[in-house]
Amino acid sequence: MENGGAAAAAKWRFGAANPALHAASSQSLRSIVTRLYDTLDHTDPRPVAPLGHGDPSAFACFRAAPAAEDALAAAALSGKNNSYARAAGVEEARSAVAAHLSRELPYEVTAGDVVMTAGCNHAIEVMMAVLAAPGANVLLPRPGYPMYESRAALCGLEFRHFDLLPDKSWEVDLDGVEALADGNTVAMVIVNPNNPCGCVYSYDHLAKIAETARKLGILVISDEVYDHCAFGSKPFVPMGVFGGTAPVVTMGGISKRWMVPGWRLGWIAATDPNGILRDKKIIESVIGYRAISVDPVTFVQGALPDIIANTDKAFFENAMDVMKEAAEICYQKVQDIECITCPHKPEGSMFVMVKLDLSCLDGIHDGVDFCTKLAREESVVICPGVFADSIYTN
Amino acid sequence: MENGGAAAAAKWRFGAANPALHAASSQSLRSIVTRLYDTLDHTDPRPVAPLGHGDPSAFACFRAAPAAEDALAAAALSGKNNSYARAAGVEEARSAVAAHLSRELPYEVTAGDVVMTAGCNHAIEVMMAVLAAPGANVLLPRPGYPMYESRAALCGLEFRHFDLLPDKSWEVDLDGVEALADGNTVAMVIVNPNNPCGCVYSYDHLAKIAETARKLGILVISDEVYDHCAFGSKPFVPMGVFGGTAPVVTMGGISKRWMVPGWRLGWIAATDPNGILRDKKIIESVIGYRAISVDPVTFVQGALPDIIANTDKAFFENAMDVMKEAAEICYQKVQDIECITCPHKPEGSMFVMVKLDLSCLDGIHDGVDFCTKLAREESVVICPGVFADSIYTN
Repeated sequence: MENGGAAAAAKWRFGAANPALHAASSQSLRSIVTRLYDTLDHTDPRPVAPLGHGDPSAFACFRAAPAAEDALAAAALSGKNNSYARAAGVEEARSAVAAHLSRELPYEVTAGDVVMTAGCNHAIEVMMAVLAAPGANVLLPRPGYPMYESRAALCGLEFRHFDLLPDKSWEVDLDGVEALADGNTVAMVIVNPNNPCGCVYSYDHLAKIAETARKLGILVISDEVYDHCAFGSKPFVPMGVFGGTAPVVTMGGISKRWMVPGWRLGWIAATDPNGILRDKKIIESVIGYRAISVDPVTFVQGALPDIIANTDKAFFENAMDVMKEAAEICYQKVQDIECITCPHKPEGSMFVMVKLDLSCLDGIHDGVDFCTKLAREESVVICPGVFADSIYTN
Repeated sequence: MENGGAAAAAKWRFGAANPALHAASSQSLRSIVTRLYDTLDHTDPRPVAPLGHGDPSAFACFRAAPAAEDALAAAALSGKNNSYARAAGVEEARSAVAAHLSRELPYEVTAGDVVMTAGCNHAIEVMMAVLAAPGANVLLPRPGYPMYESRAALCGLEFRHFDLLPDKSWEVDLDGVEALADGNTVAMVIVNPNNPCGCVYSYDHLAKIAETARKLGILVISDEVYDHCAFGSKPFVPMGVFGGTAPVVTMGGISKRWMVPGWRLGWIAATDPNGILRDKKIIESVIGYRAISVDPVTFVQGALPDIIANTDKAFFENAMDVMKEAAEICYQKVQDIECITCPHKPEGSMFVMVKLDLSCLDGIHDGVDFCTKLAREESVVICPGVFADSIYTN
C-alpha cells in the first residue's frame, strides 16, 4: 500500500455500482451457499455435510463413467478441437443432441434445432435475453431455481411467479398461471424433474401444461437438466412430447445425468414439430446471443457423441439406485424429526423440500436463519427454500 | 408441418423481439464473418483462405504444445475436476495466474486478485456488467474489437470512442480521451498487443495512458489476451506495471499464446498495488457476476498450473517466428497491391490493418463491400475494419 487506501480511492470516480447486478447476484444460490460456508465452525471436528447444491460428483459413488472421461481425454489429445467453434456449436455435438432427444419424441429434432451452451445455466441466460422484449413478462415457478430470476432481472425481463402445489405433488398451479398471464406474457418455465421440490411431472400434467400454454399463446421453456433423474413411480417424460400442442424450448445438459457439472456442456433445443419457433426466429436469436456470449469448450463438444454413445446403461442405473436409496433414507429420517415435515416424498432430481414448523422451533426466525444455525452448529449445509417457512436440501 | 407455419404462428404472442440483443449481436464480428462465409462461391476449386479471425490453431504449425494437451488430458482423467468450481475459480488456477502475472510486475499479485473466466470474451462481458452503473460511460478504442460495444450495449453501459492514430503507430489519441471524458466516465479500454491494428504499445506510451487515467480519475482495462504476441522492435509490457499510477484491471487468457481458443480459459486480475480496486469492491462485484454467469470448465482450470509450468519456451519462440514471417510476407505483399496501403507494419497480435483507396477501386463502396466481394470472387475471408474505408486481416 503506497497510500492510505481510503484517501487514495477518494479521487477515483469508478465503482462497482451496477444496482441491477448487485440485486441479481446477491440473491443467487451460490451467494447463499457461500454465506453458509462462511458461517461454518472450523473447530468442529465433524466433516461438513455438503448438501447445498445439486452436485454429487465429488463422491466416489458418483464418479463419471470411465468411457465418458476417456472420450473427453481423447478429444483433448486429438488436436482437432483447439479452435473456436461456430456460435451454434460443433456440428457433431448438435447432431448427437438432436438424435439423443429424438429417441423419446414422436417427431425428429434436427441438428439445426439445437444450439450448444456452456451448461444449462448458460441456456437460462440465453433464453431470458432472447425473450427480453420491452414490456414482456415470463412466468416462473415458486419454489424455483433462482438463476431464472437473476438473469431475467439483469436483462430487464419482468418475471411473475406461479405456485407449485405441495399438496398436489408439487404440480403447477395452472389456474394461477392463467390468472397471472396477460397480453405481454411470452413464456412459462417448468423444471422437470424438479429442482428444488424433487417431484417428477406425469404425462397428464405435462399435457395440461401444454394446453394452458396453447390457450395463452405462450412458449413453454422446459428445464430438463435433471432428465431421467426419476426414481419414483412416474417415468421422466420430455415436455417436447407436447411440442405439437404448444411450442417447447427444451434445455438440458450432461451435468446431472453424467455427473459432470464441471464440464459445462448444455443445450437449447426447439422441440416444436410445427416450426413455430423457426417462424418466430427464436433459434436464430439464440445463435445471435451465443455469438456475443461465452462458448462451450470446443473439445468437450467434440467428445459429446462418444460420451453419449459409450456411457454404459449400468452407470445410469447405479446412479439412480444410489440416489433412490439416499432419497429414501433422507425422507425416512425427516419423518423422525419434530417440527419438520416433507409434503411429498422425493421421486426425482437431487432434492427434497421440507417444511419447517416455526411454532415449535425456538429461536428460529425463518428458513435462512435455520440453515445458518444448522451450518454453524451442526456443520450441515442445506439451502433455504424461496418461502421463508420452508427449506430444501439434496 | 401439421399446420401452415404462418397461420399457426399468428396466435402465438412471443417472439425474438429484444431490440437491444438484435442491435448488439448483428454487429458482432462473428455475425460479420458468418455472413462472409455465406457469400463464398462453393464452385471455386481454390481452398478458402480463412483470415477473418485470430485463431490459427487449426494450422499444424500452430498446434498446441504436447505438454499442454497432456496436462489437459490428465486433468480430464483425474476425476478431481468434474464438480462445479467456486465462482472466483479453482484456487490453484487463480494462484498460477497470480504468479504468472507477478513475474513481470514490480509488485505481487495474489490469488485473491484473480478471477477465472471462460475466455477473455467472458472477461469483457463481466467487466462491462460490473461497470454499468446508471449514467456511467466507458471509453473504447476505434478501430476496436466489437465485443466491447456489444456487451456494453446489452447491459446499458454508454460507450464513447477515442481514436487510435494510424500515423503514430496506432497509439491512443490521449488528447481525444481527455476531450471525451466527463464526470460519468468510469474506465478506458486498451488492447495491447492490439487487435485489430497489429501494434504494440511502448513503455512510454503506456506510462502516458496511466497518467491520463489518473488525471481523469478512471480505471484502465487492459485487454492483454495477445500478451507476448510481439515480434517487432518493442517488447510486450504489461499495463499492470503502471498500476501504481492508475488502477488497472488486466484481462488475459491462454487462447492466443497457447493457441487454444477452444479451451475457453481466461482471467480478470486486479493489477493495482494501492488496493483501490479492492476498496471500490470491483473484484467482489466481478465474483458476484460470475456467480450468476457461466463458469470456465473445472478441469481446464485444474490443468492450468501444469499448462503454464510445462509448456516449453521453444513452443512460444516457434509460434512467434512463424507469426513474424507471416506478418512480414503479408506486409510486403500488400505493398505490391495498388489501392491498398498499410500505415503501420504489424509488430504484434495476429492482425494487420490496411487502408483502401476507394477512388481507385472501381465498384467498391466500402470495406464491407470489399470483403464481401473478396470472399465471393477470391475465396479469401478477411474482416472489414470499423472505419468504412479500412479493412483488417490476420
